[in-house]
Amino acid sequence: MQALPELIGYLAALLTTASFLPQALLTLKTRDTASLSLSMYAIFTLGVSLWLIYGIFLHNNAIIAANSITLLLSASILYVKIYNRLTGREQSHTAAAAE
Amino acid sequence: MQALPELIGYLAALLTTASFLPQALLTLKTRDTASLSLSMYAIFTLGVSLWLIYGIFLHNNAIIAANSITLLLSASILYVKIYNRLTGREQSHTAAAAE
Repeated sequence: MQALPELIGYLAALLTTASFLPQALLTLKTRDTASLSLSMYAIFTLGVSLWLIYGIFLHNNAIIAANSITLLLSASILYVKIYNRLTGREQSHTAAAAE
Repeated sequence: MQALPELIGYLAALLTTASFLPQALLTLKTRDTASLSLSMYAIFTLGVSLWLIYGIFLHNNAIIAANSITLLLSASILYVKIYNRLTGREQSHTAAAAE
């Protein structure tokens, strides 16, 4: 057993999974999605769904747990993005407007 | 060998890696980062760096390649976010302002 690589792998998985929490909280709080890419969240949410299916196939609880959480966060962001896009609540080029 | 789960795993990895490309392109083009979470990109970039180190430890070229690309995309987004934050180019609550 290689303890250090395994520890680094777990920490990497924890960080990349947990990172979507502050984004989901920010998006749900401000409802601001102008600088979020719709393509990113559509592709990412589909990818995470496939990771979840992969984990179910392999009966791997770590993959199932991590991707269930990420799917919930990612799908929430995607929902707000699509809602804003459909209801015309988006204003783009914020940075440019601030100059 | 289980061909279907393996195929789903590869497709999942491809999609979650590729998803950051449209976000990076959008961010580099518009320079708009108001609705992007600084915490997300800081934590995610650190996590992807650890995935890269993990891949190097394991001599796994697939993990190294995927995470090198994601690190480049994620770090580019993080750079624009920090630059905008430091130079006061951010305007928040875009969605609220549009209402």
